[in-house]
Amino acid sequence: MNITVAGIGMTKFGELWAASPRWLASEAVHRAIEDSGMEKKSIQGLFVANMLSGMLGMQGHLGALFAEELGLSGVPAYTVEGACASGGLAIHAGMMSILSGQYDTVLVLGVEKMTDHKPELVSSALMGAGSNEERLTGATFPGLYAMLARSHMEKYGTTEKQLAAVSVKNHFHASFNPLAQFTHPITIDTVLKSSCVADPLKLLDCSPVTDGAAAVILTKKVMRASSGVQIIASQIATDTLGLSGRKSLTELAATKIAAKKAFQQAGVEINDIDCAEVHDCFTIAEILAIEDIGFGNKGEVGPRMEKGVYTLGTAARVVVNSSGGLKGCGHPIGATGVKQIVEITNQLRGACGKRQVKNAKCGLAHNVGGTGATAVVHILKK
Amino acid sequence: MNITVAGIGMTKFGELWAASPRWLASEAVHRAIEDSGMEKKSIQGLFVANMLSGMLGMQGHLGALFAEELGLSGVPAYTVEGACASGGLAIHAGMMSILSGQYDTVLVLGVEKMTDHKPELVSSALMGAGSNEERLTGATFPGLYAMLARSHMEKYGTTEKQLAAVSVKNHFHASFNPLAQFTHPITIDTVLKSSCVADPLKLLDCSPVTDGAAAVILTKKVMRASSGVQIIASQIATDTLGLSGRKSLTELAATKIAAKKAFQQAGVEINDIDCAEVHDCFTIAEILAIEDIGFGNKGEVGPRMEKGVYTLGTAARVVVNSSGGLKGCGHPIGATGVKQIVEITNQLRGACGKRQVKNAKCGLAHNVGGTGATAVVHILKK
Repeated sequence: MNITVAGIGMTKFGELWAASPRWLASEAVHRAIEDSGMEKKSIQGLFVANMLSGMLGMQGHLGALFAEELGLSGVPAYTVEGACASGGLAIHAGMMSILSGQYDTVLVLGVEKMTDHKPELVSSALMGAGSNEERLTGATFPGLYAMLARSHMEKYGTTEKQLAAVSVKNHFHASFNPLAQFTHPITIDTVLKSSCVADPLKLLDCSPVTDGAAAVILTKKVMRASSGVQIIASQIATDTLGLSGRKSLTELAATKIAAKKAFQQAGVEINDIDCAEVHDCFTIAEILAIEDIGFGNKGEVGPRMEKGVYTLGTAARVVVNSSGGLKGCGHPIGATGVKQIVEITNQLRGACGKRQVKNAKCGLAHNVGGTGATAVVHILKK
Repeated sequence: MNITVAGIGMTKFGELWAASPRWLASEAVHRAIEDSGMEKKSIQGLFVANMLSGMLGMQGHLGALFAEELGLSGVPAYTVEGACASGGLAIHAGMMSILSGQYDTVLVLGVEKMTDHKPELVSSALMGAGSNEERLTGATFPGLYAMLARSHMEKYGTTEKQLAAVSVKNHFHASFNPLAQFTHPITIDTVLKSSCVADPLKLLDCSPVTDGAAAVILTKKVMRASSGVQIIASQIATDTLGLSGRKSLTELAATKIAAKKAFQQAGVEINDIDCAEVHDCFTIAEILAIEDIGFGNKGEVGPRMEKGVYTLGTAARVVVNSSGGLKGCGHPIGATGVKQIVEITNQLRGACGKRQVKNAKCGLAHNVGGTGATAVVHILKK
């Protein structure tokens, strides 16, 4: 498996009140096409990642909609959905379509417009990623992840301060990312003193509501050296939709399975990974991700997070969420998994400026749907 | 491209008030697995086709949901959506995943539960397949297809009686299909006298609101001879979302492109096709499909329809919609494209009983989203 990332593009992430989904998509795709140096007519397929357009805007059929909007009418196109993992899943669908031999070059577009809708409707729609039981009992994602946090704290002694350290790191990284939603650094104290959302998670333990789009052009063609980043593994795994069906509340089995298969497929080891974008929808989610992928043993990651082991500019073996992650860069649902590929590609190209991970040669992207019912792992190298 | 259809299954289509989406899915998949003679653990990927669950039921993330429900937790799974073409698109996604080399055997599940929701909400949600302009002006699909019908009548002299003949044929075919929604034959007169929905389309020119599920197991493994049906072409094309952007209102360009590419890919000719399932959401849609695929010239198909040229038991070169089509068998949106593959497979196996097309060796399935913004064409042979 060797698919070249030919072009990448993304919009500013944030509360973009004036931007329509069409504008966001066009902007991200325009940048990706320009970046690739390819002509638009090279694109033979379009995979759109989105979760909320149907639920909140009653607009489905986004494949054809964006094909038309982007001047690609005629081109095969469809929507891929798996809640917050939609972006990673669409990258996977694009990869498979090229590996099949039927498509040479495809465009993957992740897009979400969240601020057009009332917050309580957005919360309700996001629960569309959860189980019936969870929805009917009034659970929300902060509450569900709070249960995961509490379990982790009880089993491994993880502290609220350690959770806060995830947020501090990701805001620090985001301060070097001009496209991030939050570009101001914060302190442990700020996180701990922010309003409680679902104990032990506070406001600054939670990723924000974000508008944004990201686009990636994948090809089997040999590209010029400057953009010679390749995806060398693409794996999906699933788990029960609701937490009640899980064997453990201190790990996400889907992440473990997808990561293990991805390392096997790529033929690389955990120590080969220089930078990783992981799914930190809540601070506890990043600790779980780092453990379940294998960048740290269970219970060790909290203390290491506080020591700055995954932070840019330290002697980090692997820098986690250099983009700012979902917490700092923002989390426009369908766009997130695609943006992760954009960031890792930029890192492997050495194009990340102040947030560049030195000598980054191999990177990993990890995208989760719901509370871990879907996990997608990609490994990239230059 | 040679992917074996290893197993097929579908539920009864109809107003299944007592059936939940989970029950429908389980029933169709159970039948497909039993039909394949394979073990469930052979399934390495799940592709779910659905349009309305998010919009009407606020439940997304159906890949993981149905993986769990079907006892396949862990298996890679996601939702594929492209309005009424979702089923055909999911078959395509499954095909590509196998051809990529990463998956040997996958399950494609199409499922839709429409009667749980108020009819006016269903109408509104279905317009999620159309363009902004169409939605904002209050257009509905019967109205849009009525415009296509009117254009065809003006340009080619197609008559209301010829349109009615499509419905009569499909009800006649459905009368031999115990899983069809409508198993009673009707007459031209019944159609012409039914209530006007959107002139010139009457109630019996329109496909119904339907609950149902269909499942197909695809594999690259060599199967026993009895189920040796293969898919030899899988092509998608798109067009503008709304009718206002089209060059012509008397053809669907996406169908023409997808069909042309599919014939090239399969290496078969139009005359090789013995049976076809085409997307007759409205009677005019079947006439357009037959013309645009190439089973008849523009303007000739209406008169030929009245003569019974596409009807079972006549000297038909190609029997169209032996299942009863969307009109007679029913149209549970996400399930329709998958059901078409079930029907063609049954025809090529010679397992269709009273509705068997004699010596059927090669078949075609044609699935449309919206008013032709997406078209998917598959060609199968035994």
